Amino acid sequence: MVPTLRGGGLSRLRQLNVLTAIAALRAAGPLTLSALAGRTGLSRPSTKEVVDELMRLGWVEETPPAQGTLGRPARRYRFRAGSGHLVGLDIGGHNIRAALADLNGVIISETRRPVEPDTPLDERLAAIEHAVAGCLALGGKTIEDVWVLAAGTIGVITPEGRILYCAAVPAWTGFDLAGHLRRLFPCEVLVENDSRLAARAEAVRGAARDVADAVYLHVGRRMGTAVIIDGKVHRGFGAASGEIAMLPQARLFDASEHLQSCAVIPEGTPPADAAGYTLAAARAGDPVALAAVERYAGDLAVGTSAMVLLLDPQVVVLGGGFSRSADVLLPPLRARLERACMRLPDLRASTLGDECVVTGAIDYAVAHLDDQHFTPDAPLPTPR
Amino acid sequence: MVPTLRGGGLSRLRQLNVLTAIAALRAAGPLTLSALAGRTGLSRPSTKEVVDELMRLGWVEETPPAQGTLGRPARRYRFRAGSGHLVGLDIGGHNIRAALADLNGVIISETRRPVEPDTPLDERLAAIEHAVAGCLALGGKTIEDVWVLAAGTIGVITPEGRILYCAAVPAWTGFDLAGHLRRLFPCEVLVENDSRLAARAEAVRGAARDVADAVYLHVGRRMGTAVIIDGKVHRGFGAASGEIAMLPQARLFDASEHLQSCAVIPEGTPPADAAGYTLAAARAGDPVALAAVERYAGDLAVGTSAMVLLLDPQVVVLGGGFSRSADVLLPPLRARLERACMRLPDLRASTLGDECVVTGAIDYAVAHLDDQHFTPDAPLPTPR
Repeated sequence: MVPTLRGGGLSRLRQLNVLTAIAALRAAGPLTLSALAGRTGLSRPSTKEVVDELMRLGWVEETPPAQGTLGRPARRYRFRAGSGHLVGLDIGGHNIRAALADLNGVIISETRRPVEPDTPLDERLAAIEHAVAGCLALGGKTIEDVWVLAAGTIGVITPEGRILYCAAVPAWTGFDLAGHLRRLFPCEVLVENDSRLAARAEAVRGAARDVADAVYLHVGRRMGTAVIIDGKVHRGFGAASGEIAMLPQARLFDASEHLQSCAVIPEGTPPADAAGYTLAAARAGDPVALAAVERYAGDLAVGTSAMVLLLDPQVVVLGGGFSRSADVLLPPLRARLERACMRLPDLRASTLGDECVVTGAIDYAVAHLDDQHFTPDAPLPTPR
Repeated sequence: MVPTLRGGGLSRLRQLNVLTAIAALRAAGPLTLSALAGRTGLSRPSTKEVVDELMRLGWVEETPPAQGTLGRPARRYRFRAGSGHLVGLDIGGHNIRAALADLNGVIISETRRPVEPDTPLDERLAAIEHAVAGCLALGGKTIEDVWVLAAGTIGVITPEGRILYCAAVPAWTGFDLAGHLRRLFPCEVLVENDSRLAARAEAVRGAARDVADAVYLHVGRRMGTAVIIDGKVHRGFGAASGEIAMLPQARLFDASEHLQSCAVIPEGTPPADAAGYTLAAARAGDPVALAAVERYAGDLAVGTSAMVLLLDPQVVVLGGGFSRSADVLLPPLRARLERACMRLPDLRASTLGDECVVTGAIDYAVAHLDDQHFTPDAPLPTPR
């Protein structure tokens, strides 16, 4: 749970100044008093007062002076991002990843547990516990240090965090994931669709940074999509956005089969590696693999054109497992979009790799902290 | 053009107070000083000062006292919405409509001129001039009274108001509509896609009022779509959103053919009335017409499902010519969306009729006035 300052709290104006200073320090890193005053618009004496207050509360500390500076350097102050911790969780069909981060969203440790889509529910839930315990142990923390845990998973999820429908993991449909995680972990729990979290990571720190509108394609054995409008991931009225792959005519749902079942794949290759073979062979110029990639891009282009024609985004981001082969996939996809769309958006490959969902989960927890706790409408959290 | 107060202008603070009062009076209608003070947060003496200023400027007038009130009623003040005028224009394939409105967007007069998709460009442009002249004459105004003219038209339009591509009206592709209208009319000119304007009218005063996210279907001989996100019509990076009908797999572009070429239509029926016959026959229970409606709804449901699955909107609004037959069209469309989508949005029929685009054009002009002229960043307009 997020510990909060109770009784003897700050006056309203003082709290507003404190929040403004915290926001400036979180956004900019260590600052001198003058620089902080410049960013907050507070007078220098008020800034000094607020910083003293924040140091007393434990939210701010002085940074060690920079080496090799001549004369007496001005003191610099920073937000104590290690005062609390966040956990991000990616519960996928084939992997469960957990990451521990500080309050600025900087990732400290990560763990991964392999599962299968048909892993029984109790084993899947045990793997989740182990993954979280693993990243906590690696980071030298316990679950009591964690303020917010944000979990991303496949499937259509209700606003309350129950899984309404999951085609990829049969045991998942109907499961109250948020309820289960809340019983398991004594912190705030958020549950969100994994493609939307990956898109959030792209918007916050990835290929869609500084872009107002983008379409996100999560390409891998399973296909997901998400939409960024005005810099925000669009959730939908019932938290059910991004499910265009469920429409057969969009040709997205089974598109990966072209890569998964290509003749170039050696017999006995585990399914997890199959598409990788096809993509590598295509990169090497194998005509059979190239034809499979063309068919894959052809299917992908149908649903993607629908999204691009509807929304006219500035950027399309290719993320997820197959995006490591963006060099092979983007040229045929671009050629098809150019023919089908009025205006070709900028096509970009994600650079967040397999950590995109877990990173987005951390960013979701950071945003929750800002919206719900570092706000004038709530008591100020108290650092550990 | 919007006449503005130059030289001897108001101080910044005075201007902010004046704009706050204008916004409150425009939103709420006639108010007493106390009610206006309550809405603006200004003290009563400041409110009095601001109202005096606004009366001096000509922006505010006293309303006649209400009849039958006992005692001396408190004075009430209102915004002089007739101080300037706006023109909305709908340049369609088969009709050109023009409407004259006051600064609150209340429509005073309307005219319509029939055209055809293959009407030569010079005749089409002459019809536009006649339609505008007609609504001005009906409203007893001249073009010099008009501050902003907003035109909606079919096709993909550049942000600068040139028509990039128009499948329905061949002569339209490549035409610099904004440039032409600016040469023709001595007022500010805005050009926007017609489906987006119709969607705006739904968001401002129609079926999507008070809704954050909606998908708008413009159904008629020609098919258009638009998306409302967070209460705002989504325009797209290159102003090219809403063109999903251009994707053959979305099955929207030619869907109306099922209604236009049904066997129940008497020979010699003009194309403008053909679909109406089919829809009326379906309403009367004719099995051939009902089958045509089913095929139409089947096609419409494919592209609509793509939009609904992608965005999970609260509402789908059916607007445009065919929406007068929503009683016939919505049940089969609803049945198909129910099967294809995760969550069925509320399906609503537009009540704005054939005036939806021209109404949206007026609403666009009102929003432009608010954003560009009734703002602290511009000199205050001066009333006529």
